[in-house]
Amino acid sequence: MEEETTMPCRFRLDLAYDGRCFSGWQSQATDNAVQDVVERALAAICPAVTGVQGSGRTDAGVSALGQVAHFDAPADWRMDGGAWQRALNTKLPPAIRAMRCGAIDPRFHARFSALAKTYRYEIATGDVLPPLRYGLAWHQRDLGPVRDLTDVLRLYEGTHDFGAFCAKRHDGRDEGRDNVRTITLAGVTATDSESLILEFCGNGFLYKMVRFLVGSAVYCVKGRISVGEISRLLKGPAGEARAPYCAPAAGLILVGVHYPEEFEIF
Amino acid sequence: MEEETTMPCRFRLDLAYDGRCFSGWQSQATDNAVQDVVERALAAICPAVTGVQGSGRTDAGVSALGQVAHFDAPADWRMDGGAWQRALNTKLPPAIRAMRCGAIDPRFHARFSALAKTYRYEIATGDVLPPLRYGLAWHQRDLGPVRDLTDVLRLYEGTHDFGAFCAKRHDGRDEGRDNVRTITLAGVTATDSESLILEFCGNGFLYKMVRFLVGSAVYCVKGRISVGEISRLLKGPAGEARAPYCAPAAGLILVGVHYPEEFEIF
Repeated sequence: MEEETTMPCRFRLDLAYDGRCFSGWQSQATDNAVQDVVERALAAICPAVTGVQGSGRTDAGVSALGQVAHFDAPADWRMDGGAWQRALNTKLPPAIRAMRCGAIDPRFHARFSALAKTYRYEIATGDVLPPLRYGLAWHQRDLGPVRDLTDVLRLYEGTHDFGAFCAKRHDGRDEGRDNVRTITLAGVTATDSESLILEFCGNGFLYKMVRFLVGSAVYCVKGRISVGEISRLLKGPAGEARAPYCAPAAGLILVGVHYPEEFEIF
Repeated sequence: MEEETTMPCRFRLDLAYDGRCFSGWQSQATDNAVQDVVERALAAICPAVTGVQGSGRTDAGVSALGQVAHFDAPADWRMDGGAWQRALNTKLPPAIRAMRCGAIDPRFHARFSALAKTYRYEIATGDVLPPLRYGLAWHQRDLGPVRDLTDVLRLYEGTHDFGAFCAKRHDGRDEGRDNVRTITLAGVTATDSESLILEFCGNGFLYKMVRFLVGSAVYCVKGRISVGEISRLLKGPAGEARAPYCAPAAGLILVGVHYPEEFEIF
């Protein structure tokens, strides 16, 4: 019995943040990372909460509508998910919000339970980058008809070796890893005459992969790389051949992380 | 002939700005006003340009998609509107952009030629204010059905004495002024389940008037002031009776200023 009552209680925490205000998700020695700020808020509420695990890293400047994380609270700490959410939102800066929080099966792991993720990337195509989109969109003019971009993005759909569409991590975490991923959706919508929203859904994304996919698609419709070259790069890295361009972090938003149904909270 | 060539050339300048970064439009002794920043950029390009006149003041925290201003350049200064726009955008911070600039009839005056203005006000109605809307929307829950808000806003349409829906200026500029204005549109649209966009179009707006109209409408649907009281206030200030609430600057955007057709630039 004692065993059972001392088991910590796991919570799923859904977060939104403005990436312009932080040095990315991952804790850094000297910087202002989202993970650090959330961990300080959790510890200010309950000192026994020692960490938060995210579904994955977002780079400096990347925003989130639905980053998902988990943390463990002591079993005798009597706060439900709603109370955690409200308490966190009094401690967090307005640029980070707890959107939902709920107790969850202890087998839930924000990173390892994830089945898929959805990202969005905004390109501002007007003559001038609107001030309210500064830091939230990549300014690129003369992309031609939306159909051309759609045709390139369609090449990404399916199962490919995306090793040519990622950056190497400095910490060597990628050594010997499998770069095969499945993209179930890569599309683009024109929201108005001056903005394009690209959307990507897949079962996993390598380091900076979405930004390489966006950068290469834009370079392709501008004639700086051919459709044939992109198709070849999707067969896996051959020698030193790599995607030509990594689009800036501004523009990228982690929209949501998808889990098996039993890990949903409401 | 000499007279003619020394006439200054007037330019119409359409500006967008992120109100979160500035202390309002109007020059202030110590603050970071949009007008100051634009005047410094103009003078850096051509020292003979000594000022810029806006269509009206926007308060600290109020953004603009289409503020309109004018300035005068020396007749012998050989830059067209496009060149001014490009030069300004290299000098201005990204939170202010010159959206358009064009030479215009010297009878054009950004303030006195204006026929009407359009403002938008965003209310975030979800449980949590999204980080990317922080400073750009007023967070108000439990507003009831959109129809109720529509019914209140409709009261504002038409010609009324709005003296009960404005703040007094400290500089006494309003003394003895006529407070009768005509509102041609006051409506609301639900963009998604968590956001309402209120829109106001009228031939003129008193100091903080849009914010008083929004605050009073929200107080009305929350049952803190009756429809009858709002109707009475629209007959003009009777004694000390005034609108009950001024909504915050965050949320308000000057969408555009409308002029006679001969003053359009493209």
